[in-house]
Amino acid sequence: MKVVLIGFGGTIGKGVDQELAAYHDVVRVDLKTGDFNVDIADPKSIETLYSDIGAFDALVCTAGSVHFGPLEEFTPAHFEIGLRNKLMGQVNLVMLGLKHIRNGGSFTLTTGLLNEEPIREGVSAAMVNSAVEGFVRAAANVLPRGIRINVVSPAPAVESYAAHRHYFPGTKPVPASEIALSYTKSIEGSHTGRVYRAGWTRDL
Amino acid sequence: MKVVLIGFGGTIGKGVDQELAAYHDVVRVDLKTGDFNVDIADPKSIETLYSDIGAFDALVCTAGSVHFGPLEEFTPAHFEIGLRNKLMGQVNLVMLGLKHIRNGGSFTLTTGLLNEEPIREGVSAAMVNSAVEGFVRAAANVLPRGIRINVVSPAPAVESYAAHRHYFPGTKPVPASEIALSYTKSIEGSHTGRVYRAGWTRDL
Repeated sequence: MKVVLIGFGGTIGKGVDQELAAYHDVVRVDLKTGDFNVDIADPKSIETLYSDIGAFDALVCTAGSVHFGPLEEFTPAHFEIGLRNKLMGQVNLVMLGLKHIRNGGSFTLTTGLLNEEPIREGVSAAMVNSAVEGFVRAAANVLPRGIRINVVSPAPAVESYAAHRHYFPGTKPVPASEIALSYTKSIEGSHTGRVYRAGWTRDL
Repeated sequence: MKVVLIGFGGTIGKGVDQELAAYHDVVRVDLKTGDFNVDIADPKSIETLYSDIGAFDALVCTAGSVHFGPLEEFTPAHFEIGLRNKLMGQVNLVMLGLKHIRNGGSFTLTTGLLNEEPIREGVSAAMVNSAVEGFVRAAANVLPRGIRINVVSPAPAVESYAAHRHYFPGTKPVPASEIALSYTKSIEGSHTGRVYRAGWTRDL
């Protein structure tokens, strides 16, 4: 399959790239590196990307920014980062990708555990992750032409845990190669509307 | 308690008003009617409201718009309605209300079942409801001064079901007076971070 991977240069993206490359034709996309570039916060950039890439079978997005910080220091601009980037960036990848994805293709988006296991500075991340999952559950029922959509909610990755441990005290990180398996399940399986909890369970 | 009720003129708002008025001092707020007016999509309007009302013990929001329509006809502007109004309108009521709410006060927001029981034209509603619930779950852990936050996810109300039945075929509506009980539970109880499913269960 021709799989478009947005965010291939990130920690999870690298794991997904390794996992998928053995079985698929991976088109590598990131903000400034790869076969093609995109800024997912800019719908025009997404439109240009799709017209450059042409038809594809699956889209994976492992990119998406949100602001982290104490609740009482959040400004409207801080919330806007997550809304424009990780939320509407991923929603627009789906909405604008519908014209280009082949019959029976799949979209696989990315959220994270913070929606169900909140952390102190992650109110915006919880809001945005939850929004993406609500969109996926609802969109799965109405996508045309046998197109499927799922979302992977990864645990913190081992590879970046040292830098992020202060956000996730006591949370067990997992290798990106394990997280990557959920993306394969979404792409090659039959599911739609699923949220895959990749590497975490509540209270662990 | 002094309870600020945003959206008192709506179907659920009327039920909540009747329920609360027997026990509390209700400050009635809506877009164009009531003791005070507010456009929750406009942060400046919210700031004016709070400085006019002064200190309060509880805030309830039963207002909030989203666009309904077939997924493939959604434009960015359609998504933006729900983001600005029902999502960030309610988030901003909390963020800007923190300066005015008394110690131990409570915020009670409103979502709806579409996040967990999607309907054909409700992709934006599912996304927005889910986002509000994620925000509430995470904010509950970090609000200062004993302030609590919950969200009521109501079933369709009997009073407006005739006009909305085409959105909710086969869903059992409940009287607004029943839905209103969840708001009382949030205001007078001890819970925080809860999503009250008011009048519905999955698959009914």
